[in-house]
Amino acid sequence: MAKRKKIASGELALIARLRAMAGALPAGRVRLGIGDDCAILRAPAGHELLVTTDFSLEGRHFRRAWHSPQSVGHRTLARGLSDISSMGGQPLAAFLSLALPRAVAQDIRWMDGFLAGLLTLAAQNKVPLAGGDTSEAPGTEVLADIMLIGSAPAGRALTRSGARAGDIIYCTGALGGAAAELAALSKTPTRFRHAQSSDEHPHLFPQPRLAVGQALLRRKLASACIDISDGLSTDLQHLCEASGVAAELDAALLPAHPLTAALAPAAQMAAILHGGEDYELLFTAPAKTKIPRSLAGVPITRIGRIVPRKKSRARMSIVAEDTRFELQPRGWEHLR
Amino acid sequence: MAKRKKIASGELALIARLRAMAGALPAGRVRLGIGDDCAILRAPAGHELLVTTDFSLEGRHFRRAWHSPQSVGHRTLARGLSDISSMGGQPLAAFLSLALPRAVAQDIRWMDGFLAGLLTLAAQNKVPLAGGDTSEAPGTEVLADIMLIGSAPAGRALTRSGARAGDIIYCTGALGGAAAELAALSKTPTRFRHAQSSDEHPHLFPQPRLAVGQALLRRKLASACIDISDGLSTDLQHLCEASGVAAELDAALLPAHPLTAALAPAAQMAAILHGGEDYELLFTAPAKTKIPRSLAGVPITRIGRIVPRKKSRARMSIVAEDTRFELQPRGWEHLR
Repeated sequence: MAKRKKIASGELALIARLRAMAGALPAGRVRLGIGDDCAILRAPAGHELLVTTDFSLEGRHFRRAWHSPQSVGHRTLARGLSDISSMGGQPLAAFLSLALPRAVAQDIRWMDGFLAGLLTLAAQNKVPLAGGDTSEAPGTEVLADIMLIGSAPAGRALTRSGARAGDIIYCTGALGGAAAELAALSKTPTRFRHAQSSDEHPHLFPQPRLAVGQALLRRKLASACIDISDGLSTDLQHLCEASGVAAELDAALLPAHPLTAALAPAAQMAAILHGGEDYELLFTAPAKTKIPRSLAGVPITRIGRIVPRKKSRARMSIVAEDTRFELQPRGWEHLR
Repeated sequence: MAKRKKIASGELALIARLRAMAGALPAGRVRLGIGDDCAILRAPAGHELLVTTDFSLEGRHFRRAWHSPQSVGHRTLARGLSDISSMGGQPLAAFLSLALPRAVAQDIRWMDGFLAGLLTLAAQNKVPLAGGDTSEAPGTEVLADIMLIGSAPAGRALTRSGARAGDIIYCTGALGGAAAELAALSKTPTRFRHAQSSDEHPHLFPQPRLAVGQALLRRKLASACIDISDGLSTDLQHLCEASGVAAELDAALLPAHPLTAALAPAAQMAAILHGGEDYELLFTAPAKTKIPRSLAGVPITRIGRIVPRKKSRARMSIVAEDTRFELQPRGWEHLR
C-alpha cells in the first residue's frame, strides 16, 4: 500500500498477502503500484478520467455473520466497478483502503477469503490493484473503502443528465434479485456460506455490467445512464432530477429476477421497484434508436418512457393494468 | 458525493453543506464533480497520474477529545497532499469518504468545523473536492478516507527508488515538531482547542510541501524523495530499501523543531529521529548538484549521505560526536 501503518502481526500478513496476490494481476496502465507514496498511472490518450469511491462498512453494507469473506471482497470491488460501468468506462486501477479489527486481522482464513473474492473479480475484469491504505480498525467492524479510476473517450462518458422527453427507458438483466436474496439470507444467514461467484447470487456476488456500459458508449446508444445500486425508483429519480425530466414506467414490462418469485406479491413488487444493489444499468435512448435485445450477453428490457417534467404531476409514475400510480423513490439508500 | 446513502437528517445536512462548500472551490480540471456515479477529470497532456489514499480514523489517527474538528479536517487532507508533494506532483482533485456516527452527524458545529478545516487547506492549494462517499458510521468513531489524484510530467515523478551511493541526504523544514506538539497535547488535551492553521502547529495543522516537491521535480534537483509521515528513521529506511542503498546521518546537522526544546534530551532526539507526521520531505541529490538553502520559502538542510549497502553493516547509521551508532527504524507507524 502507499503507506504502511503501525500494525499487529496479522496486518503484516495482510499486507504481505495483498502485495503478493495483487502482483499476480496484470499491470495494465499502472507504471508504479503498491510501495511508493503514490501509484503512477498512464491514462489512455484522448481519454478523460472517471473516479469513484465507495465505502463497504461492516454493519452498514454487510455482516460477517451473513456474508462470506469472499462475498464481502467481491461486493467491495463490485460497487466501484458498477459506477465505472454506468459511465461506459474502462477501469484502469483499483485502490483499497482496509481497516481490520485485531481479531479479524489475525484470522488468516477471513483475510484470504476477502482478498480472493476481491482479486478474483479484479482479474475477471483485468483491473490492477494499484495501492491503498491499511490500518487497524478503531472498533470491532471491518472497514473498507474502494476507489476506482477508469477512463472514457473525452466528452463521451455516459452521465445521468442526458435524458430527454420522448426517450425510452431500458434496464439490463433482471430486477429485485439482490433484495430477494438478501431477504432469504436474513432468514437463514448460514444458507449461502459456501456460495461462489455466479449470476445466481445477485446480492452476494453482483456482476457489474462493464461490457454493457462500454457497448452503450461505443455504439452511442444511450442518452443517459446510471447503475441501479440504490433501487430502481431511487436511481430513476436521480436520473430524472439530473436530466430535468419526468418518467413513466410500465409495470408489466419490468423484468423480475427469478429469485423474487419466492416473495409475496407486494414484497416482490417492492424488491423490483425499490430493492437496492442489483447493480444493473438503467439507461435511456431516443425512441428512434434501435436497441438490441441483448448487449454483451445481457438482456436489455424496455421498461418505460421519459416525459416532460410538469410541476402539476409527480416526477415518476408507474402504469399497472391501465391505472397510473405515483412512484415514490423508496430505495433503502435514499436520501431523505 | 458520487453515491448517496440512507442517512439521518444530520447526514443530509452534511451532504448539503459539503456540496455547497465544495462548490466554492475552483473546478480546475474537474469536468463533472459531485453528483453523478463518477467524477470526470481531465489530466494534463503529457502527464502521468499520481494516486494515493489515506485513512483518518478516530482512535487511530486522531481523537475528538484532543483534536478540534478543524484540525481533523485539515489533517485528513494534508496526509494525501503530502503524498502528492513527495512525488513532485500537482494535485488535481480530492475525494472524501466520510462516515459519521449519528451523534456526530447531528452536531452541526463539529461537521462545519471539519469541512472548514479540510476545505480551507483545499482552497489554499487550489484542489477541488470532486466526490467521495458518505455513510452513517457503524460504530462510535468518525471514519474518513481521503483520496488524492495528482499528476506529473510523464516519467518525471520523484520516487523512493532513485538514491545512489554518494548522494547527499536533505530534509525540508524542521523535525520532531509534530511529535513534540502531540506530547504537549496528550498532557493538556484542551490546550489547543482554538488553534488555527499555521506553521506553529506542526501536529494539528501540518503544512504539506507541495511547492518544494514541485520545485525539486521542475529543477531536476532530487534523485529520490519521500515524505516524513512515519518518522525520519522509518521513512529513510523505506527510501534506502527502495533504492537498494544504505545511509549515514549526521546528528549535529538535524534541524530540530523549536517545539522539541520543551522535551528532555532523549525525548527530543526520539522526536527528531522517530516522530511521525512532520510531513516534511526527505530527499537525496547527487553531491555535485547545488541545492539552494531554501525552496519555496522552506529551509533545506543537508543531514547525511547515501552509502553503498553492505550486508556486514547496518542499513542506517547516525554519527554523533565522532561515534557511529546503528539507526533503527522506530517510527510509530513502522511495519514490524
